[in-house]
Formats: sequence, structure tokens, C-alpha cells
Amino acid sequence: MKENLLHTPDGVRDIYGTECEQKHILENRMHKVLNSYGYRDIETPAFEYFDVFGHEIGTTPSRELYKFFDREGSTLVLRPDFTPSIARASSKYFMEENHPIRLCYLGNTYVNYLDYLGRMKESTQMGAELIGDPGPEADAEVIAMVIEMLLSAGLKEFQISVGQELFFDALAGEAALNPEDTETLRELIRNKNSFGVEKLLKGKNIAPELRQLFVQIPSMFGGEEIIEKAEEMTDCEEARAALERLRDVLRILEVYGLEQYVSIDLGMMSGFMYYTGIIFRGYTYGSGDAIIKGGRYDELLKNFGKPSPAIGFVVVINSLLHAMNRQQVPIVSEADRKLVFYDDQSRDEAIRTAMNLRKQGSDAELRKVEAADFSKTDAQICQEGGYRDVIHTERGQKT
Amino acid sequence: MKENLLHTPDGVRDIYGTECEQKHILENRMHKVLNSYGYRDIETPAFEYFDVFGHEIGTTPSRELYKFFDREGSTLVLRPDFTPSIARASSKYFMEENHPIRLCYLGNTYVNYLDYLGRMKESTQMGAELIGDPGPEADAEVIAMVIEMLLSAGLKEFQISVGQELFFDALAGEAALNPEDTETLRELIRNKNSFGVEKLLKGKNIAPELRQLFVQIPSMFGGEEIIEKAEEMTDCEEARAALERLRDVLRILEVYGLEQYVSIDLGMMSGFMYYTGIIFRGYTYGSGDAIIKGGRYDELLKNFGKPSPAIGFVVVINSLLHAMNRQQVPIVSEADRKLVFYDDQSRDEAIRTAMNLRKQGSDAELRKVEAADFSKTDAQICQEGGYRDVIHTERGQKT
Repeated sequence: MKENLLHTPDGVRDIYGTECEQKHILENRMHKVLNSYGYRDIETPAFEYFDVFGHEIGTTPSRELYKFFDREGSTLVLRPDFTPSIARASSKYFMEENHPIRLCYLGNTYVNYLDYLGRMKESTQMGAELIGDPGPEADAEVIAMVIEMLLSAGLKEFQISVGQELFFDALAGEAALNPEDTETLRELIRNKNSFGVEKLLKGKNIAPELRQLFVQIPSMFGGEEIIEKAEEMTDCEEARAALERLRDVLRILEVYGLEQYVSIDLGMMSGFMYYTGIIFRGYTYGSGDAIIKGGRYDELLKNFGKPSPAIGFVVVINSLLHAMNRQQVPIVSEADRKLVFYDDQSRDEAIRTAMNLRKQGSDAELRKVEAADFSKTDAQICQEGGYRDVIHTERGQKT
Repeated sequence: MKENLLHTPDGVRDIYGTECEQKHILENRMHKVLNSYGYRDIETPAFEYFDVFGHEIGTTPSRELYKFFDREGSTLVLRPDFTPSIARASSKYFMEENHPIRLCYLGNTYVNYLDYLGRMKESTQMGAELIGDPGPEADAEVIAMVIEMLLSAGLKEFQISVGQELFFDALAGEAALNPEDTETLRELIRNKNSFGVEKLLKGKNIAPELRQLFVQIPSMFGGEEIIEKAEEMTDCEEARAALERLRDVLRILEVYGLEQYVSIDLGMMSGFMYYTGIIFRGYTYGSGDAIIKGGRYDELLKNFGKPSPAIGFVVVINSLLHAMNRQQVPIVSEADRKLVFYDDQSRDEAIRTAMNLRKQGSDAELRKVEAADFSKTDAQICQEGGYRDVIHTERGQKT
């Protein structure tokens, strides 16, 4: 046997047993919520032409893409992200529709991280995209849906932080910084580095109030009062409109009765090139990374020839599951699992017993009695194998 | 916009709309059957080290594998087939168990076919493996399960053809042909080419009865009488034992009450290197290719250091769906889909209406009334969008 034949490559792994069962329970629960909001399933190929994920569109550095070639020499890429594929597919199939399109998906993404640090290179994502609706109703709907998904998964303690890329963009425009400084400033705010912001802006020709606002943005997170505070600090019309949009979204989330799960974070910047408005992240205890990542990307679809506003998100399933396990939230299968023992004399009876159990909605696994089985009690077998019952049909041995 | 940005690479495609919905309905129905037989889900990585699928183990020619490299220079391969991955994972995690292991999976496989001919290079497979049970009960169980899966999917007209690799192996041993002739003969029988068999064996030093049997094997398919017919034609003990095993399996399938879906095909040869006993295929109208492929592979797991008998199969989901659509078998969602129209005046009411519908188990999609909507009647909207009802909450327009 070759040495590494039992191993999986770095950054990918098998998922089995209780973990796999729990993962599917979460996926099913959340998928039901997606469907209940009218989102329809779509599957895109695991690999696509490089250009779909290339630097003009994608958010993953080219060197972190898994690349290979087709017979014609075109570069193919394992998808690092679903959104560009969904945008491509929407542009191809749905743009004749004169109403918004709701799509959802579940599948794996592949990023060959340079700084490995234990991050998984294959990761399961469930997500949705609402395409063609530019309004705050769309923003609120996807945020409400995310909240309902997490609640249906069984998570209780979580927060959806909502930011607004347009607020920073408007202020950066007002400040008339050069593009390089703008990006540095964005990065400093993203990293909540107020000291860095102060240092960067020192000596720059910017109105003192605006400078003061930039320094404060990294700490502008909390409840709705943050929006008011920001409004008081700027007269920039575009910035105020961006804040007003955020308020509209909160107002609609109140209609959903879900506003208590939402907080505002004006310093949140996606770092994703394609986001252009409302952005949001979901956090919970037990996961350092966001379990939800989403936002508006009104400029992405024009790359595929059909400009259209859009908003979407992904749930990082493995991170959610990991967090729920760390929080000891029970994720319990409703399956009524039974193990039916048999011997040579009772085989046919056992098969019929199992078939009847299945007809009644139970899961029934058949197991022939071997000498080794006697070392465990039925209770131990149930415990170890996740069965609710053990049924004995044997006649020859053990009665 | 780049020209090919809307296109998917050759041999892969998007699945959406009704097709995607029907695909998931089939997957869910069949997955329930797998679970009801006690099979537990497992997910393996989409790519693995080359050796897992390499020529010593795999069934896909190396030049038809999608290959790429990791940072350490190891060759990675997109899985062309699940069985080797499941065998690897079983050897790694489950071989301490002293009872059979039942595993099932759903996912995509990737084969870069040289002779393209419209074959999809990405294909969804649902399958199961029963590891550690050498008996005819295991053979019968997986065949019974396959039948129940197809029935639960809604397919009515299908046949599971069952063959036995050991029957041919025994006769080839008896004939003492050299390995090359044995493989040629196997291929001729596989292609139901009796004339070719006669030609190949002409002048070879083989007993006339055995020669006669080889010539007849390609036409030895039908009911249980085929087994008797073959028994009468050979005294080879191993060949008779192979036939007896086939009879045992049929006997157990009668206990399941599913024997009417099964036929015998002694000329069936897998062409898959790893099969070593009972093999089977499922056929239905509307699909030239088998929709089910399975068999026993008792020699595969020793490649991973843990020899163990095993039997498994895959359902080729896309072929099954295609066949069912050609047969006009309805595959209808049970979802109660409603479309809730609103305008600026009724927005909050519409959101509350949608939330209530969702609580009651319906799917509710919100749509803002635009001028364009007036061109269609509610009945047309339902028909085109797959809704059961349209609900109007608008106050400003259309009442």
C-alpha cells in the first residue's frame, strides 16, 4: 500500500458520522427557509472558465484559485465563490423576466489559501441571491431570511452586523482623497485602526469635521443611535442618503419583527471587490470568522452583459456547525433508528420486520448476529450506534 | 464583455428551474430510502491524491482524469467515481468496527471523456456501499434498496439486470485460456458478440460443451430459468457455486417481494476493474445508458490496507431524471407556493401576510407591483411561475 493512500490532501477532509448527519440537518432546515421565501434552487458547475472568477470580477487572488486546463487549452477554475457563477447564470437565463429573480444554492467552494493556518480549502456554502430589486425591501428580505435561517438551524445567540459601503464612499468622495489613500483609509477603518486613520489623514487638506468623522468610524457600531450620531456629524448629502437607506432597512426589519438580531457597524468594509451598498455579516460565539457574509453588488452583473441590481449572501456551513457544537446547541436527528438482529434461522422474518418498520417511517438496519456481538449490551449498542431500539429476531442464539 | 463569459465549459452546465427542482425531489425521495435501510451519509473531498484513483485502483483511464497540482507538487484529481474514496474513508475510520458498515453519499463526479459525444463531464451520483458483509444477504439488500429507491422516485417501468462475474471467471479458469484471450473473450461476451466468441475459440483446445456454453452466454438473459439452463451446461464446481450464489440472492429478493423487478444476465460484465462477484445494472425506457450501476468489489479495500468484502452502487441522477421526463412520469413539488403582490401603501401588510403564510407551511414570495405586471392575468402568472395562488395586497393600484 502506498503511504499516503489513506490521506486526503491538505485543507480538504472527509465528513462522516455525527458531524455529517448534523451538517445535513442544518442544511435541510435552512434550505426550507430559503424555499419558504420563494428562492429557487440552481446548480452551477464546480469549474468554470477562468474569466468568470478572474481579477476583473472575482474576489479571490488568482494565485489562490485551483486552475487546470481543458483539451482546448482554456484555463478552468474550481469555483472559489458562488456569486459570480450565479450572476453569469442569471444573465444567461433570467434577464428577460420583468420581475426580480430569487435563486439559492448549496455546494462547495475551493480556495487554495496561501497562508494556510488550518483554513479549509474546500468549504460548503449555502446562499441566495435576489436579483433585479434595487430597493430597501430586498436588503431587508435577505437579512430577515438569514436571521430566520439561523433561528431554524437552532442557533439562538447571534448578531447580524450591517454596514453600508456607500457611506464611506460618499465621505471619501467628499474628502477628495486620491485612490491610493482612499484604499488605505478603507483598510484602516476595516481593521478598526483609528490611530492609523488619524496618522494617515494628518496634514491632509480635509475639513476638521470630516477628519473627526473618519477617526470615529471604526468605533461607530451598536444600535440605531449610531445612524443618528453619524447624521449629526456630516452634511454630505450622499452620505446622509446612505444612512437613510440603512434606516429604511431597519424600519422594514421591524415589520419582520427581527430587528433585535441586527446591529449597525459603519466601519464594516467588505474587502470584497464587488459589494456596493448594504453589507452584512453574521457572528456568533465559538466561531472567530463570520458565519454569514453578504451584501449588495449592483455592479457585478454588468460584467455579464446584463446590468442589474442584486443582493446576496452565503452561510458558511462548516463554521456554523462548529460554532453550534462549541455552544453545545443540540442538533438531533428525528430519525427513529432501529437495529434488527437476526441469525440463519430468522433471516426472512428479520427482513420482513425491517420492511414493516420502514413502511411505518422508521429506519431499520439489519445485522447478522456474530459471536462478537455478545460482548455488548443492547443499551451500549444503541448508545454507540445512535439507535433508538434494538430488535432481536434470533432463534438459534440469544433470545 | 468577454465573449465566452456567459458560457460554461464543454461537458458541464447549469441546472435550474423545473429541472433543478425535479432533480432535488428525486434526490430527497431516494435519500430517504437509503437512510431507511440504515445507510449513513458521508462526504469525501471533490479532489484527492492521484493514487486513490490511479490505474491500480481506479476505473477511469488516467488521461480522462481532471488533474492539477497542489503546492507541494503532488498530483490531485477531481473524483471520477465515489467508490475508491469511500473505500479509502472506510479503511481509515471504520475498520475497527466488528460489524458491517453502511455508507451513502450524494455528489458530483468528473470525467474528462476523450470521446465526448454529448456525454456530461460533471455528473451527479447518489450511491451506497455496504462494507464488511460477504453474504448473499448483502447482495440482496443493496438490490432491494435500489428497487425501492427507483419506486420511491416514481419510476414504474424498470429492470435490474443481475450478472455474476465469478461465473465467467470460473469458466475461463476451466478453459485455461491465456490472460489476453480471457480479456478478449470477456469483452466479446460483454458486447453480446456470439459470433466473435465462436471465432476466437475456434481451434482452441477447449471441451466442446464449454465452447458451446461460452458461445451461448451472450444470449443467457431472462428469468431464473437462465440459472438452471447454465447449471445444466457445466460441471465446473466453481461456476455452479457462482450460479448458486445468484439463486440465493434471488431467493432473498423474494422475501423482499421485489423479485419481479430483477432479471438475470450471465453475459453482463462490468468492464469496471474492481468488481468481483454479483454485478447489476438498472435500465429503463428513455435512457440508453444504465441509470444504476453496482456490484461487489471484495478486492478493492485491500488497496487501502484493510481487506474487506463490499458491495455498492450508484444511481446516475441526471440519466434517471432524463428518462422519467421522457416517460412523462410527473415529478411534482408538494410546495404550496404563493406570490404576494404589494405596492408602496401595502408593503408592511404584505410582509406580515407572507410571514404568516410561511408559518403555516406555505412558500411565500413577495413582489412589488410594477406597471409591467398588469399585462398578465393571475392565472398566467401562476402557470408561468409555478405558483398555486397569487395574493393581492395592493391598495393604490389594482384591487
